[in-house]
Order: sequence, then C-alpha cells, then structure tokens
Amino acid sequence: MTAGPRATTLIESPRLARHAGVELVLASETFQYTGSFKFRAAWRVATSVPNPRVLTASSGNFGQAMAYACQLSGKGCTVVMPHNSAGVKIDAVRAYGGIVDLIDTRTTSRAERIRQLAAADPAAYVASPYDDLQVIEGNSSLGDELAALPVDDVVAPVGGGGLTAGLVVGLRRAGSAAAIVGAEPLLGNDAAQSLRAGHIVVNDGEPQTLADGARTVSLGERNWAVLQGGLAGIVEVPEEALREAVRLLFSLANLKAEPTGALPLAALLCAPERFRGRRVCCVVSGGNVDPAVFRELIG
Amino acid sequence: MTAGPRATTLIESPRLARHAGVELVLASETFQYTGSFKFRAAWRVATSVPNPRVLTASSGNFGQAMAYACQLSGKGCTVVMPHNSAGVKIDAVRAYGGIVDLIDTRTTSRAERIRQLAAADPAAYVASPYDDLQVIEGNSSLGDELAALPVDDVVAPVGGGGLTAGLVVGLRRAGSAAAIVGAEPLLGNDAAQSLRAGHIVVNDGEPQTLADGARTVSLGERNWAVLQGGLAGIVEVPEEALREAVRLLFSLANLKAEPTGALPLAALLCAPERFRGRRVCCVVSGGNVDPAVFRELIG
Repeated sequence: MTAGPRATTLIESPRLARHAGVELVLASETFQYTGSFKFRAAWRVATSVPNPRVLTASSGNFGQAMAYACQLSGKGCTVVMPHNSAGVKIDAVRAYGGIVDLIDTRTTSRAERIRQLAAADPAAYVASPYDDLQVIEGNSSLGDELAALPVDDVVAPVGGGGLTAGLVVGLRRAGSAAAIVGAEPLLGNDAAQSLRAGHIVVNDGEPQTLADGARTVSLGERNWAVLQGGLAGIVEVPEEALREAVRLLFSLANLKAEPTGALPLAALLCAPERFRGRRVCCVVSGGNVDPAVFRELIG
Repeated sequence: MTAGPRATTLIESPRLARHAGVELVLASETFQYTGSFKFRAAWRVATSVPNPRVLTASSGNFGQAMAYACQLSGKGCTVVMPHNSAGVKIDAVRAYGGIVDLIDTRTTSRAERIRQLAAADPAAYVASPYDDLQVIEGNSSLGDELAALPVDDVVAPVGGGGLTAGLVVGLRRAGSAAAIVGAEPLLGNDAAQSLRAGHIVVNDGEPQTLADGARTVSLGERNWAVLQGGLAGIVEVPEEALREAVRLLFSLANLKAEPTGALPLAALLCAPERFRGRRVCCVVSGGNVDPAVFRELIG
C-alpha cells in the first residue's frame, strides 16, 4: 500500500548536459506509479472525492493512473477507451484493477459514453484527465518537489495544460522564482497560439503528433486561468526534434522516455539560444511507450 | 563537480513485483555517473591513489567510469581497448576525457599492452576492474545504502565478483542480515562452480553470454576471499531468461537495463520457489547497451 505518489527521480547526465549546452537535471516521472506524472492527479482525485466509483475517458496514462489510484483507495474505476486502443494500454488498465469500457468512436463519442455510464451510476465521480482543480492540485506536488532545486527554468510538456498549471501552482506556493516554460508539439500548437492570442485557441481535431500525451484539442479552462499569467513561454517542437530527444535520453542518460516526456529536452535542442548556460530542469513526464514504437525511435 | 558517486535509484514496480511473485525493489545503478555501478570503484581508485595517471584495460563500463573519475579528480587516464570494440564504447571513454589505446588482441594481449604502458610511465597506477581492494571498498558504498532497506535478499550480478564482494562488505558493516545472492550467466558459471568446489574455478576462455559485464574467466582472488563465506548462493541464469528480464524491466518498470543488469531479475524468474513471498532487492548494475542490441531484445 502506497501512501501517495513517489517522489520524482532526479537524474544528472553530464554528457546530455554538454550536448544541450545547459546545466541540466532531469525530473523523471517515468518511475512514478503507473509510469507517468498522471498518478499524482489520479491519487488526489481518488482520495478527495467521496464517491465510491470513478468514471473517466482516457486511452493513455490517465486511465492507468486512475485505475491504480482507485484500486489502492478501495474504489471502483471504469475507463472508457476506443476499441482500437493498443492492447498494451488496455492490459495496463486491467492490470491496475480498472474496468475497461471499449467504444467504437465512429458511432459513440467518449463524452456520450461517459454521460450514459454516469446516468446509470449517479454515485460515480466523472474525472477529467486535465481540466479539473483536483488535477491541478495533484500535479502541484511535483512543483513542491522541484522548488528545492537551484534552477532558472523548469521545462515541461503541454497538452491539456494540467501538468504545467500544477507546476505553476506548486513552484509559486513554495516560493520558487524559476521560469516555467512549456514544450508543445508544433503539429498541435494550440497552447502557443493561445498565449499569443490571449484566449484559448482550439485545434482542428486531434493533432497527429508522435507525442500522444499532447494530442489534446485545446487547453482546459481551469488550466488556462493559471497558465495565461504563469508561463514564461512555450517552445514549439517539430516532430524530428522529438525523435532526436527520445534517442538522446536513451543513449546518453539511459532513460526510457515516451515521446511526450521527451518534449522538454527537444525544446532545449530547438531553442538553444534561449537556454544556453542556464540551469534547466526538464520534466520527463512519463515512460509508457509501445515497444514497437520505441524500437523504431532508437533505430 | 561531483562529490562522489550518486545514491542509487530505488524503483518500485507493482506489476513487475506481481509478475515475479515477490515484494520487489530495484536498486538501479543505470543513472549512476557513467551509467553503471563501476563509477563507485573508479571514484575510489581515482581519489585514493597518489599517482597522477591511471592505466586500465576495459572494453566496457569500467573504462568509462575510470576515465570520468580521473577527469573529475584531475588525473590522466588511458584505457586499453580491443580495436574491434563497439564505436559507442570508444566514444564514451573519449567523451569522459580518457585516452583510448586500441590494440589488436590477435597479436597483443591486454595484459601485455598494460605492461608496456606501465613500463613507459612508471608513475601511473594500474587499476584492475574488479580484483582490487579499492574496488571492493568503492562498491561497498552501495551495500551501505541498501542496508537501510527492509529486505530479506539482495540479488546482484556476478562477473569478476567485485560488486557482490562490495555488497557483502558494505551490508555486513552496516549491520544488515540480508542474504546476498549472486546471479550469474549459466554460460559462464565459474563462480557457481567455485562455490561448489570450494576453490576458484576458471572458465575455458571468455564465455559468450549476452551479459557482457560477466564475460570474466574467473572470480578475482580478493573477491573470492569475501564471497566464499559471504554469499548465500548463486543462481545460474540461462540466456533466454536474461532476454525475458530485459524485456520485463523495459515494459513493466520503464527501465533501460543492460543484459548484465537484468541478471538479478532473471534469477527471480529462474528460481521462483527460492524467492516466493520474500522481500527482494535486485541490483540493476548498469544501463549501457548498444541501441541495436536493445532493439533486438525488446522486439
């Protein structure tokens, strides 16, 4: 029985730091329970809401995290997933005790299926993977931890904005003045566009980036309220830099990162003038990646 | 500037633990400086001997570790390597500031080349990768760290015996009663044979196991003196279990382990009745593995 999320794993890699031209520390959430930072939010939700069961729609890390957090706290959990999700992801949710509810997204949307399930089980709590104050609060625990580091910049992936919003809340609460920089796939740069426009910009459909944790159509409203004034900027990362970052984390830091988790290092490679000589913490948000995808990335 | 070896990285993986049928903690040295536990011994040698330069023969992790430890402590380091060593290994020694001395092992043995270099530079210290009291002492720092864990067994790879000897010394000094179990490739099971015979048994040549860190012809004499009475036993690991262990560390624990580092988990898979229900710490000794080899292993 865990007493909550594991502390993040801090990794130094002199060769990677030299390659990136910065003083570097990696904050790896790949060894967090269920393999990504999502467990922080899921644990918070599971232990905060009074409901006996939790419903969520997630084909990725949040589903696994919510299932395991519920298992540990004695709650039921149902995860709605597309019927064509990767087998390893379905297996993972089941391994952590979750019920998998498969839908054909051509005929039923995730939101619609969640509404059906919620109507049939009014006592269940419907958890959003990112647009939820409990999610921000859960993720803020990583900010609390990183506030102790002597760094100028904390760079983290941006998808729905739950992680970066949590970092802003946690770092500021703990008195850190570190700049918080987002790293977003150029293919789905709605958050960068939102910062420029001063309001939430929505992608046309789910962006087909390799960073599957950032295939969100827009920032969450609760996250935007924190990020609009809290982010120092967003670096837009081309897919090729993302591949290179996964490869470098593997070869120079012995780290298995999922593509989304490699976004911050990729940002350093894309914008060297912005970071040169600074003390930078890159948040490696998760490590759950299909072996076939990973083989191709390091090949 | 580092003040010495990094603390080991403790990783829990509920799915891997369940798969292995034990209470499991991984002590990963894959994020140690230079990517393996060898930095512990190298740092000890570099900071203990008065000589301005160090000579060693190593085609693997000790060469990188010795080069970096010397760079950090202001010493010179020459590493003798076979001319057909993998390019990534030669590059790594150079990246850590070492001079690489390539030899054609068909015409010159490593020992002979070391003798030549030592004769030309009498002020240099000749460091053995494993059969050296400083090496045991350096590795004992890992035993000091693991003594704090509530475990019944500490399982670690056996090659020349430097790591397990260091664990025996460190764990016992710190008052731990944990059993120390070796994990050795069946293809080169000289250590297991030695325990049975009561004296050092020597392999016929270098065993062609995938666990390249355990391709030693025999235990070191100084290590044998510690291990003969200090080891609770040795599990002999077939190559197939080694492959499975690398794959499981990757898929269930998000860990990039080199084959030698996966020996302890492989031992758990091979001898389930020995470990069932016990609290086990597996030492993942290093993570430096060629991308092409790794791709094949996780395929």
